[in-house]
Amino acid sequence: MQKITQIYGIRAVLEAINSEEPVDKVFIQRGLKGDLFKELEHVLRKNQINVSYVPVEKLNRLTKNNHQGVVANISPIAFYDLEALVEQVMETKKLPLFLLLDQLSDVRNFGAIIRTAECTGVDGIIIQKKGSAPVTADTIKTSAGAAFKVPIAKVDHIKDAIYYLQASGIQVISATEKTDHTVYDVSFKIPSAIVMGAEDRGISPSIIKASDRTAKLPLVGEIESLNVSVACGVFLYEALRQRMKS
Amino acid sequence: MQKITQIYGIRAVLEAINSEEPVDKVFIQRGLKGDLFKELEHVLRKNQINVSYVPVEKLNRLTKNNHQGVVANISPIAFYDLEALVEQVMETKKLPLFLLLDQLSDVRNFGAIIRTAECTGVDGIIIQKKGSAPVTADTIKTSAGAAFKVPIAKVDHIKDAIYYLQASGIQVISATEKTDHTVYDVSFKIPSAIVMGAEDRGISPSIIKASDRTAKLPLVGEIESLNVSVACGVFLYEALRQRMKS
Repeated sequence: MQKITQIYGIRAVLEAINSEEPVDKVFIQRGLKGDLFKELEHVLRKNQINVSYVPVEKLNRLTKNNHQGVVANISPIAFYDLEALVEQVMETKKLPLFLLLDQLSDVRNFGAIIRTAECTGVDGIIIQKKGSAPVTADTIKTSAGAAFKVPIAKVDHIKDAIYYLQASGIQVISATEKTDHTVYDVSFKIPSAIVMGAEDRGISPSIIKASDRTAKLPLVGEIESLNVSVACGVFLYEALRQRMKS
Repeated sequence: MQKITQIYGIRAVLEAINSEEPVDKVFIQRGLKGDLFKELEHVLRKNQINVSYVPVEKLNRLTKNNHQGVVANISPIAFYDLEALVEQVMETKKLPLFLLLDQLSDVRNFGAIIRTAECTGVDGIIIQKKGSAPVTADTIKTSAGAAFKVPIAKVDHIKDAIYYLQASGIQVISATEKTDHTVYDVSFKIPSAIVMGAEDRGISPSIIKASDRTAKLPLVGEIESLNVSVACGVFLYEALRQRMKS
């Protein structure tokens, strides 16, 4: 079903990035030098692509081909442009629902979240180029194929995406324990976007600050947090529940 | 934190089972013979303990000690007796909430579900001896330690546990897509138990039949089911939400 592609060789990887192929991550051999390499580094930085500097043995494991010190993973799905996505959704839907993931890093959580998003009618998932779990074969498998159905937009900074959503008339709700409000205090009967944080650190403080509202899930035991894909499911279903009631 | 213990040797494993140690699974060398071995097989059957017949190489990988063809995994947690657990909970809680897992097999899903159960105040989790994901170090890690906090009862048959709960005045709700009712149609303001099914097959038809009610989560996309730990989280939080409202 899905195709996971790899590209190798400096020129080929440069060409892929310049043709706007969805390059997810680039592995570069430690100590690589030369003008072409400098150009690659410049292009990678400009496009905020994830880079990993690795020993040559790692590259040899990634491909049997002559990689010249550079291997790139191409995402099996195409990513959306945030502004085009929001504009298109706002034109066709009365009550859009977006989901932002602030540097969620576990591939299985990411997949489960995409799956729940598809099941609850989320109109688009927004992730940050840097620090996010990549869309791999595992992500797609855990998503039960939903990764091909829910539009995913990759942005430079989640915070800028929040400002853009707000300017488009969408309320932004950060899911965090550091608040007195529960998710049941929030009205989802207006255009909404929910932000979920990283597995370990939660949502960055500056992103919480940029949000319109914060909301938590009540925890009645001793454990202080839920698995992020479970928490995300409860948030999305609360939005759906409220919207199902006439 | 947790201790995962292994026992090896026929006599030692026999002794552990007879002393009611929480033996999770026993690995037996293929082709093993003898009276003591026959006794072990009898005791394993009587106690409905999971058995796997494996080549000797597998046993040699499990332990460096002289295993004599038998290695047993001891669960790091002690299991509760269903009747004692239900009795104790019914005496102290007005609105108990139980969770039954019908042969859920993925260790990570099991761990995430135990974690959510702890966070939502579940009074006990009931699993079946045969066919259930074991409580391993991975289960405990994924549960964020909740496996030490939520009582878990192991029963011979989930169906008998359902009859016992019903006889104790607890309504049993099966989470299944094969129903017209959503979870929002169910009142959780009476003593309740929720049944979640296996990742692939869902809940067995005979268990659905034994339940008082069935309920599904609305799915507004094309994907036909959620990850089971996400679905379980939405069910448990709906119960909590209803009970939080005065």
